[in-house]
Amino acid sequence: MSVPDISGVIAPVITPFRRDLGIDVDQAIAYCRWLLSKDCGLAVFGTNSEANSLSVGERLDLLDRLVEAGIDPSRMLPGTGCCSIVESAELTSRAVQLGCAGVLMLPPFYYKGVSDDGLFAAFAEVIERVGDARLRVYLYHIPPVAQVPISIALTERLMRAYPGTVVGMKDSSGDWDGTAAMMRALPELRMFVGSETYLLANMRAGGVGCISATANVYPDGIDHLYRNWRSDAAEDLQAGLNRVRETMQGYVMIAALKAVAAHYTGHEDWRIVRPPLVSMAEEDAVKLLRELDEIGFRMAVDDASKSK
Amino acid sequence: MSVPDISGVIAPVITPFRRDLGIDVDQAIAYCRWLLSKDCGLAVFGTNSEANSLSVGERLDLLDRLVEAGIDPSRMLPGTGCCSIVESAELTSRAVQLGCAGVLMLPPFYYKGVSDDGLFAAFAEVIERVGDARLRVYLYHIPPVAQVPISIALTERLMRAYPGTVVGMKDSSGDWDGTAAMMRALPELRMFVGSETYLLANMRAGGVGCISATANVYPDGIDHLYRNWRSDAAEDLQAGLNRVRETMQGYVMIAALKAVAAHYTGHEDWRIVRPPLVSMAEEDAVKLLRELDEIGFRMAVDDASKSK
Repeated sequence: MSVPDISGVIAPVITPFRRDLGIDVDQAIAYCRWLLSKDCGLAVFGTNSEANSLSVGERLDLLDRLVEAGIDPSRMLPGTGCCSIVESAELTSRAVQLGCAGVLMLPPFYYKGVSDDGLFAAFAEVIERVGDARLRVYLYHIPPVAQVPISIALTERLMRAYPGTVVGMKDSSGDWDGTAAMMRALPELRMFVGSETYLLANMRAGGVGCISATANVYPDGIDHLYRNWRSDAAEDLQAGLNRVRETMQGYVMIAALKAVAAHYTGHEDWRIVRPPLVSMAEEDAVKLLRELDEIGFRMAVDDASKSK
Repeated sequence: MSVPDISGVIAPVITPFRRDLGIDVDQAIAYCRWLLSKDCGLAVFGTNSEANSLSVGERLDLLDRLVEAGIDPSRMLPGTGCCSIVESAELTSRAVQLGCAGVLMLPPFYYKGVSDDGLFAAFAEVIERVGDARLRVYLYHIPPVAQVPISIALTERLMRAYPGTVVGMKDSSGDWDGTAAMMRALPELRMFVGSETYLLANMRAGGVGCISATANVYPDGIDHLYRNWRSDAAEDLQAGLNRVRETMQGYVMIAALKAVAAHYTGHEDWRIVRPPLVSMAEEDAVKLLRELDEIGFRMAVDDASKSK
């Protein structure tokens, strides 16, 4: 079955909360629209979306509401990997039914030191339960957080067992040598790097884009490198992106993204995170925004994204 | 409000699956009855229960079904800590409504390196949402698996903010010095060690029992030390328990427990685990059972527990 491939710059969309910690669905819809207007794809329910701080019910509901509101599912790559194969299958099925371009699938992440056989069985069970030829799985390799890595051998085994279904990876290891080794071993794997720091290297190595935290606030800047990676200016564009990234990385990323979004949209509640995360302290927010100003960063919000 | 304290030996009850990986509720009820007959408490939905491999819906349903079947909730300490405060609150509320003695609460375990402020907010939010004076929380400290430790400072802060509600801990760190330091700092904390290896030390230091994997197959042996920890035979009893524990620890624990349960009950399907875990290989099961035989271990199943 023909499903158009998704590529380019994708944001693990930050999730707006109300003061009672419920999801602000209207704000989520508006933010997704703004990201799409910047040609940015939507990995809702990523790590930076605080996906695992949402219930499965909240995730199913938000996905429904986004698509109902006209957000284009062919530009969506929702995170659907849970600790339980039952929940991963339920979320994945919904994403496929809604017409999403694919899903980003964490391995079950509670047990540590599990075998490739066990991880293979977990992914296979979810794929079999979904049982839909439209499914496109991007494996989500993020050992610093999940603490459960996805090896080259496991990826190869899954691609062989489910050709056309297991098609790609988001590599958030932060280890470019490892990413490059995966790509050399499996040239057909559609590789998204987990940070724009490696976007130019990834494109040169045959990758398809990046799914990066920073795309939440700088989608246009990152997309500009994506579209011009073959140009003479590419190294300079990469260096410019790196300055923004390095500034953001001096802070706890999710809270920092939300502080930036709050500042530029004027919607103060963007600063709210769910526990166990904590919102950025006011003095840190001021310092971060000043540092971003100094390197010429602006978040290109439009009037529709601003608080009224 | 008066809620009787739970103490002694508690099993993180292994969860029986059918071949389609669904929960075998009848087998679960029978196993809980057998454990209760050995004076063993029931920490359903612990790490050894593969709790995080179950959906929240499955956990709510199984808890209902166990209590409906007459399993005494005052002997139950279900695990209710999820990555999402919404789900933790839902499971915890149900446990309280059903009359459970308390709950065993993991910290949110997806994000690593989170602050004590964030963890405090997570536990506090769940407690406030449950909003029930009957709630008794036992914090579940298991850094080797969750990778999110619960510090002395955090425990103290929670006990002060929620006196009579945050009452205890299961310490599965495997670090007795750390456990002892926690108990010296917070003498009112009701301490369960996460392995019977430390049961005698824990009782001597003022602890209240253990919640241990091995209690699934050796509840009577562990209970015997619990009841006789002041006797002259205590050191010998501890040494005997250690031989069983060390033998089991030569294998992957959950699969090993299930292989032992399958062998002694004659119910072969006990060997089924959910991915990402894998069942014990036949040759390993034979070897483990022989080693257990050699040290005189028998699982004291009764006829009701045996497969018909």
